[in-house]
Amino acid sequence: MKETTRTDVNELGEFGLIDHLTKQFEIKHSSTVKGVGDDAAVINNGNWLTVVSTDSLVEGIHFDLMYSPLKHLGYKSVVVNLSDIYSMNAIPHQILVSIAISNRFSVEALDAFYEGVRAACDHYKIDLIGGDTTSSNKGLFINVTAIGRARPERLSYRNGARPGDILCVTGDLGAAYLGLQILEREKQLFLDNPDLKPDLEDEKYLVGRQLKPEARGDIIGVMAKEDIIPTAMIDISDGLASEIYHLCKESEVGILVEEGKVPIHPDTERVALNFNMDPISCALSGGEDYELLFTVDPGDLEKIVTMPDVYIIGEVTVKEQGAVLKTTGNNFHRLTAQGWTHFQK
Amino acid sequence: MKETTRTDVNELGEFGLIDHLTKQFEIKHSSTVKGVGDDAAVINNGNWLTVVSTDSLVEGIHFDLMYSPLKHLGYKSVVVNLSDIYSMNAIPHQILVSIAISNRFSVEALDAFYEGVRAACDHYKIDLIGGDTTSSNKGLFINVTAIGRARPERLSYRNGARPGDILCVTGDLGAAYLGLQILEREKQLFLDNPDLKPDLEDEKYLVGRQLKPEARGDIIGVMAKEDIIPTAMIDISDGLASEIYHLCKESEVGILVEEGKVPIHPDTERVALNFNMDPISCALSGGEDYELLFTVDPGDLEKIVTMPDVYIIGEVTVKEQGAVLKTTGNNFHRLTAQGWTHFQK
Repeated sequence: MKETTRTDVNELGEFGLIDHLTKQFEIKHSSTVKGVGDDAAVINNGNWLTVVSTDSLVEGIHFDLMYSPLKHLGYKSVVVNLSDIYSMNAIPHQILVSIAISNRFSVEALDAFYEGVRAACDHYKIDLIGGDTTSSNKGLFINVTAIGRARPERLSYRNGARPGDILCVTGDLGAAYLGLQILEREKQLFLDNPDLKPDLEDEKYLVGRQLKPEARGDIIGVMAKEDIIPTAMIDISDGLASEIYHLCKESEVGILVEEGKVPIHPDTERVALNFNMDPISCALSGGEDYELLFTVDPGDLEKIVTMPDVYIIGEVTVKEQGAVLKTTGNNFHRLTAQGWTHFQK
Repeated sequence: MKETTRTDVNELGEFGLIDHLTKQFEIKHSSTVKGVGDDAAVINNGNWLTVVSTDSLVEGIHFDLMYSPLKHLGYKSVVVNLSDIYSMNAIPHQILVSIAISNRFSVEALDAFYEGVRAACDHYKIDLIGGDTTSSNKGLFINVTAIGRARPERLSYRNGARPGDILCVTGDLGAAYLGLQILEREKQLFLDNPDLKPDLEDEKYLVGRQLKPEARGDIIGVMAKEDIIPTAMIDISDGLASEIYHLCKESEVGILVEEGKVPIHPDTERVALNFNMDPISCALSGGEDYELLFTVDPGDLEKIVTMPDVYIIGEVTVKEQGAVLKTTGNNFHRLTAQGWTHFQK
């Protein structure tokens, strides 16, 4: 390749790179309601809105086949994409699954992968409608595109949060990240001594959160039933801090998070301390939780407090206040954005 | 990986593998009009139909960066997907572009790739609405999903051909394959002697067909103007023989192709002979032409003969006749299906 200048992609970071690469593209069709810049794109068909999202999983980057069973990997590949559709307050209906495989994969190995895809399709009521199956020289590459739909008035973007809104999160945070730390540790022990058998029985919860996450379609269902439309919503794939950064940026607001209110599972607490890590740091920066982070109008407070597995963790403030963490010791820390470079080795 | 049986994926072939992997998936939504098994999937939104297709391009399999300029590669990645939408007689409006890149790619290299993506978006009036940008340990992976729309009554599937229909093809065939042969030859010469400068000036047409193909949106436009709806249509990505096999299988018909009528460019004729190849074999099995192969009702004959760059190459027969090539010497050969294994080294 002949180049006069060479800028390393890491200089821009993930979000900077995407901005840089896509900023010169113009929208040409009035049917394109939302292009690049949210969890999913939105297309107007004159009736329902079509919501589309795509995500890649790359061997050696997003998963390690030493400890990721292919069935789980198939399941997770679907789930991470469904999560993007749910985070628009839309319902996913269809997926396309593309894989590039080297010849070290047998038909039986692919069967296991597709068994996982099918399990996710059955669980979330999704139709597999297409994809591409091709060769690679090395490594397994997975790309899934998910398609959903929503009535225009029900969609939640990242940009609708207003000062005074309540900040909520589902489930618990940081577990998937610690699950990964456990798997990496066991892998190292195994590589050092192949006679050792990893015992993951005690850490089923954390390891399960890493290998077989779920998308919160259940929450979207409850929201529809309770007639709650989040003013803004995003799924937690890169960690709470990163998603808060996106909400602040897109909604042009500040956000105050109370450390003591961030839901953290007891196993996460325990294992974080084992690894000499701060549990709240795992929640803020760990990622891959696939929980929903959203803001609602204060008028919805009564409905929110009775919703199962939804936690109020803070509030939306004005832009000038920025993204702030109020610690349990009543200190205030500025939250910083973290993209893909954060936990990279 | 623990496996009791190991079946090599090549035993099933590309199409067998896709059938095998997807046959156990059930369609759950009435909005899913067409799932796996055509050029694109079709979703009913109650008004327009949404047509979706996805295709991957993998370094070392689909392209070689030694002779594929990144700008051309960006352009081609879009075009091969648009071609799938056009081949449904639909109009593409949006794309999602995902790439996985190793750290050997600079921002400038990605800029060149996206410059090609943008050139295709501008030329075909397409909105880039999303994608995923991620790392890979090795190799460049590209996945594009294209989304288009059509009125239900205008869509052309692979399964609508009827005995007596006219078989047509656009453009000319075999050129992209010979372009690849030239590029591979020049690469070998260069590797043997890096002082040699490849002179591709004389073979601009063939090399251009390989590196920067076009999708036949122009033909879809003329069809709409002339009010022609192909009874069946498919784009030529794997070679004429393979696409004829698909039309025969999906429409449950036979097809007779006349060798003398298959459009072949003079450069293709000349260079095929240089490579000791039969030009018709290049047209039948070469692939990557991204021309349209379609069948029309005999009542449309008058309209078809006046359409620019459309050639009548045969007719649809009954299933029992199978897929047959009538040679210029009046011999009859059975055409066999060819998938991805055909030209693999």
